[in-house]
Amino acid sequence: MTFIEKLRRAWEQQDSLLCIGIDPDPERFPSCVRGADGILDFNRAIIDATAVHACAFKPQIAFFAAQGAERTLERTIDHIRDHHPHLPVILDAKRGDIGTTAEMYAREAFDRYGADAVTVNPYLGGDTIKPFLRYEDRGVIVLCRTSNAGSDEFQGLACDGESVSLRVARKAAGEWNRSGNVALVVGATWPGELAEIRALVGDMPLLVPGIGAQGGGIAAVVEAGIDSRGQGLIINSSRSVLYAGSDSRFAESAAAEAAGLRERINRHRRKHDRGAA
Amino acid sequence: MTFIEKLRRAWEQQDSLLCIGIDPDPERFPSCVRGADGILDFNRAIIDATAVHACAFKPQIAFFAAQGAERTLERTIDHIRDHHPHLPVILDAKRGDIGTTAEMYAREAFDRYGADAVTVNPYLGGDTIKPFLRYEDRGVIVLCRTSNAGSDEFQGLACDGESVSLRVARKAAGEWNRSGNVALVVGATWPGELAEIRALVGDMPLLVPGIGAQGGGIAAVVEAGIDSRGQGLIINSSRSVLYAGSDSRFAESAAAEAAGLRERINRHRRKHDRGAA
Repeated sequence: MTFIEKLRRAWEQQDSLLCIGIDPDPERFPSCVRGADGILDFNRAIIDATAVHACAFKPQIAFFAAQGAERTLERTIDHIRDHHPHLPVILDAKRGDIGTTAEMYAREAFDRYGADAVTVNPYLGGDTIKPFLRYEDRGVIVLCRTSNAGSDEFQGLACDGESVSLRVARKAAGEWNRSGNVALVVGATWPGELAEIRALVGDMPLLVPGIGAQGGGIAAVVEAGIDSRGQGLIINSSRSVLYAGSDSRFAESAAAEAAGLRERINRHRRKHDRGAA
Repeated sequence: MTFIEKLRRAWEQQDSLLCIGIDPDPERFPSCVRGADGILDFNRAIIDATAVHACAFKPQIAFFAAQGAERTLERTIDHIRDHHPHLPVILDAKRGDIGTTAEMYAREAFDRYGADAVTVNPYLGGDTIKPFLRYEDRGVIVLCRTSNAGSDEFQGLACDGESVSLRVARKAAGEWNRSGNVALVVGATWPGELAEIRALVGDMPLLVPGIGAQGGGIAAVVEAGIDSRGQGLIINSSRSVLYAGSDSRFAESAAAEAAGLRERINRHRRKHDRGAA
């Protein structure tokens, strides 16, 4: 099954557009999580508790790389595949290079870690994207408009009447998506651009970070970003779910937070459906 | 000593602007290099043979990550620090993220690997750069205009009368370089932009990939990019040096190639000096 098929099935069967970001920061772990396998124990507990509410998991490689914990990342992804094989794994790596180097990054994400999809940075142009696209069963999720305030600095520049990020979206839809394996990152903090990008790219999946802690509103995201089937969004939450609790019941707290987010997203979907009907 | 001081001293004492890129691809190794430590053996042989001709080494992390060889990257960098401590190590990672994630990438490059400098992708804006800048003794080398033909796609877009890459250069010189630890990547294949960028950024170091295999000419690079002291360039060569020979004398072949490149660069520097005098 391709990434896109797996994702569409998860949206449907889980009745969820919520993605759980796995950003394990030992400094924020509850005190009951410690020892050599602390990160893995924490990740497994969060994954098992939130899987029922999620459409995908998104491990952030930087949190593993900072502490030399690549093996823990491999084991975290293995755990998802073994215990929740219906949920796609998006490796958040934001890689961006060219030629053989880009091929090596594609190998890292898809062969070594076995990710279903990976995030990629388009600054170097289509040359960056192509080595990833060759893995036709995997997803290539291109940074388009990121959630941070400073994304305006270059992504928001107006060039020939459209922003750099809209130009990226146009390339993604028009040139890079021939095998139907491309998606885009669009931050929840830019609902105006989210709507413009949705209008440009049809039913292409959009990965949306930046709700909650970063200030993006769920209603506006659903309103602006939902596709013609009432799906199309991978709405990510990392910290607000992972660190919802700080005691031994942290996994239950994470599950409650995830359940609440899914329900708020679904409430707005239903409102939107009724509005559209 | 800061990265910039170390680099300036290396330019001077080595009489070289040549950087050796360490992109170890086992499929291209001479048949005499094999076994579990093949990558490390290859890297050490290349490093020891070329150090006398170089101003810096630039390991490309993707080649290690693709095969789960992070420990080999650590040992390669340790080898440079132990045996050639006067030569700065530039980790080519092109990381780009925000907030805590960017902090984690800075830790990966500077704390875990102990790199003197790291390459960073500016697509997400200044938010990406700042967590790296806090390491004031290290270098932050921002992608500006990359060497690939496709870099025109976004970096070459004209916004308010200047290209995106010039805008990056302007931000780098005007906002990000307060601690004097910023440098830029400008491909050898764009001598026109290299000259414009040099004019914008004063004596800021420029890392220049793309000579040789990628087609950039040394004369044009030196002419366009040299700074007011006759230095300012970190001219990288990876494949043409690493794979100059394919037999048991591969390290000698690499040294000969590096020596030739350094000499060609220096010949153009001297010509340029005479022209300017």
